[in-house]
Amino acid sequence: MSEILDLVGIFVFALTGALMGVRKRLDVVGMGVLAEMTALGGGIVRDLILNVRPAAFQSLGYVLVPVAATVIVFYWHPHVARVMPVILVLDAAGLGLFSAVGTAKALEYGLSPLHATVLGVTTAVGGGVIRDVLAGAIPTLLYDRQLYAVPALLGSAVMAGLSTAGLHGWPATLAAAVLAFGLRITAMRRGWRAPVAKGAEDPAA
Amino acid sequence: MSEILDLVGIFVFALTGALMGVRKRLDVVGMGVLAEMTALGGGIVRDLILNVRPAAFQSLGYVLVPVAATVIVFYWHPHVARVMPVILVLDAAGLGLFSAVGTAKALEYGLSPLHATVLGVTTAVGGGVIRDVLAGAIPTLLYDRQLYAVPALLGSAVMAGLSTAGLHGWPATLAAAVLAFGLRITAMRRGWRAPVAKGAEDPAA
Amino acid sequence: MSEILDLVGIFVFALTGALMGVRKRLDVVGMGVLAEMTALGGGIVRDLILNVRPAAFQSLGYVLVPVAATVIVFYWHPHVARVMPVILVLDAAGLGLFSAVGTAKALEYGLSPLHATVLGVTTAVGGGVIRDVLAGAIPTLLYDRQLYAVPALLGSAVMAGLSTAGLHGWPATLAAAVLAFGLRITAMRRGWRAPVAKGAEDPAA
Repeated sequence: MSEILDLVGIFVFALTGALMGVRKRLDVVGMGVLAEMTALGGGIVRDLILNVRPAAFQSLGYVLVPVAATVIVFYWHPHVARVMPVILVLDAAGLGLFSAVGTAKALEYGLSPLHATVLGVTTAVGGGVIRDVLAGAIPTLLYDRQLYAVPALLGSAVMAGLSTAGLHGWPATLAAAVLAFGLRITAMRRGWRAPVAKGAEDPAA
Repeated sequence: MSEILDLVGIFVFALTGALMGVRKRLDVVGMGVLAEMTALGGGIVRDLILNVRPAAFQSLGYVLVPVAATVIVFYWHPHVARVMPVILVLDAAGLGLFSAVGTAKALEYGLSPLHATVLGVTTAVGGGVIRDVLAGAIPTLLYDRQLYAVPALLGSAVMAGLSTAGLHGWPATLAAAVLAFGLRITAMRRGWRAPVAKGAEDPAA
Repeated sequence: MSEILDLVGIFVFALTGALMGVRKRLDVVGMGVLAEMTALGGGIVRDLILNVRPAAFQSLGYVLVPVAATVIVFYWHPHVARVMPVILVLDAAGLGLFSAVGTAKALEYGLSPLHATVLGVTTAVGGGVIRDVLAGAIPTLLYDRQLYAVPALLGSAVMAGLSTAGLHGWPATLAAAVLAFGLRITAMRRGWRAPVAKGAEDPAA
């Protein structure tokens, strides 16, 4: 069950990576690289910091699911783009799930609740940051995509809090993921955005 | 004492990250991410290469100080920008300190003096490189910021030399850091720059 | 013998990094950083994922050879650029070699043939991706350089296949590297390119 949810999250993240490849007119290799990195990058960075071998290099499904997403986007990207609203909802679900699961894994390896929260957010948003950097864009995370990072922070903090209170396992993970998902969806619906510093001038560098 | 110096260095590096966020008109999340990565990125890369859990994920202060820097820049960035000359001097101090401390840690973990020097430079300049890449700019390190990398190289090499000669501990670290700081400040005052290859043509790719 | 081949591959990769520095009008520090990262980046990422200390930090030659390449390009880059066809052939040889060697090391550390193949490709192309990101360009890997990634994939897959069939050691490595080299050279000669998705629109983000 946990593995299946993981793979669904990976599949949706990989779709957004492959679609970015189409938008940037990359070839199928570029689409595949972006799909793999978007789907697996956050978890790989988390595991490097935890000093364990990345989970992505121990599961066949983790590597193959982004290949499938690439093939689908390559042949049917206009159709995939048409169901973008569905993808965004699934992406919000993946965001919630990965933040909760990432935080739980970090706690398991002995990190403090604060550090586990940071690593949970990293798991959830790291792949998207790598995708954007490789595609030559400033990560959307940095200038707000209707609070993309904030729901991940909520999910991770709730997970860390529940664990610290002695509540582990799937009920806690689910609760944290659902809260993050709900905030992200609400922020998207209402167009909530993180504030910008007053009087921020045009780039001068 | 060592911890306090570290935190001062982290605070100053974080200020430069958050200010970059303001210049690029990022929101508060982007400012915070840049602040954290500028302050902690170099040390995280060093620790990943040493194959130990990053120090940033074992200390609350390391994570919270950049948050404080972000808040300060968010509310008072015009004032912060006005004291930029002070920040640049503190940044030079952080550069010297991080190169010396990074080299010492690498030697402690058994690296050769040459490799420890490379890792010391990485510690000092790595966060700034990550900041610039995330902000969508070619790292200033690569086209010279009045010898930004060269003082780090000096500090790291001196630290490695002193350690090899049997001189360890804070006096050696301080000497190496002060030398790097002095070269950086002198280079800034006099506008020293690293040479460019003769006849370098316009980008053709 | 193996060490010498490695150093030749590192030298050629470093040349392409330093030349990119000249094209982007970077100073000698920028050229050196690009040379080091292009030559060593792929192997460092591979070793981080394998959770071992990077080989680049255990060999003096690995660090010093890119320095030599930087000096050569700094003083004689018009001559170096003139022999670019030779460099491209040597780069193809490095690509083949690094994919085979990277795959072999990953198998040694217990990865599955599929994951070892992924890591072999990473070893071969990782440094070039880091070079391009640092230089502010979308990695050429992503939009095809006459199948740059595909020969690396072929070499890695053949290496993994031969090892699984019980064929180890230099004959297998050589066979895999030569196949990758041959495909890359043929693709360059004939201008083969990876396909782009039909109807890929202009960037809309």
